[in-house]
Amino acid sequence: MKHKAYKIVIITEKLIVENVAKVIEECGGTGYTITSAGGKGSRGVRSEERGSVTDAYANVKIEVILADEQEARNIGNTVAAKYFENYSGITYLENVEIIRPQKF
Amino acid sequence: MKHKAYKIVIITEKLIVENVAKVIEECGGTGYTITSAGGKGSRGVRSEERGSVTDAYANVKIEVILADEQEARNIGNTVAAKYFENYSGITYLENVEIIRPQKF
Amino acid sequence: MKHKAYKIVIITEKLIVENVAKVIEECGGTGYTITSAGGKGSRGVRSEERGSVTDAYANVKIEVILADEQEARNIGNTVAAKYFENYSGITYLENVEIIRPQKF
Repeated sequence: MKHKAYKIVIITEKLIVENVAKVIEECGGTGYTITSAGGKGSRGVRSEERGSVTDAYANVKIEVILADEQEARNIGNTVAAKYFENYSGITYLENVEIIRPQKF
Repeated sequence: MKHKAYKIVIITEKLIVENVAKVIEECGGTGYTITSAGGKGSRGVRSEERGSVTDAYANVKIEVILADEQEARNIGNTVAAKYFENYSGITYLENVEIIRPQKF
Repeated sequence: MKHKAYKIVIITEKLIVENVAKVIEECGGTGYTITSAGGKGSRGVRSEERGSVTDAYANVKIEVILADEQEARNIGNTVAAKYFENYSGITYLENVEIIRPQKF
């Protein structure tokens, strides 16, 4: 038996990580993973790796795994609607399969 | 010609990264990627990004790419069986396609 | 309406991150995300997490999201052809779905 699930990924500015975490919890996410990230987006280069970056401009990659597709989409849509007007960001959905989901 | 492969992802406590690496090698994984991660799971908040975290509680995200689906599942199942009783963690499978797999 | 897209992932040595970024831009990528990574590959252990690593040997994981599959493949193929003879690396493709792609 395969346990299909949905991973919603949000890459945005570190400044709003607390706000994004709140959205995730309000939308039903029970856990998430945060990684520091740099890179380049449509608003110019920000980087963890390429120097000349102040902490405030650093990015984060936030991943949430959900069993429910609609909850996953809702998190992405809510974060985009609330924050991507004023902060750079991208959000996308991936299909995954949970192994041993009893604890999930 | 497309080269379908399987990515097994393990997000767990940094404390057991050596043990997980050993399982990966015993199960046939020839390489893996480790990233520092924070976040929130079912056992409470641990975080790289949100402060107040001791090193021992930090998380890691470990990714392994395998050509063989059963080997990938076996790594996830073995890690979950051995460690997820006593350490927080999640493991999931994704489909990927290797580009230029001659070196893989 | 679903917005299918392609994520090309390149895991390679930090030393060549600028070169890879140049390839991405030349191949039509308008943004990318960089994460520090360690791990083990076919050329031996390098690690962010497991100590005893000099900066020059650290790895990076670079992710690019593209609407066009051919552009995504082209980035992976070009990076592999140019650099994987002399630097360790792997590149793979994943299917994703962009949420709210108006800014993408």
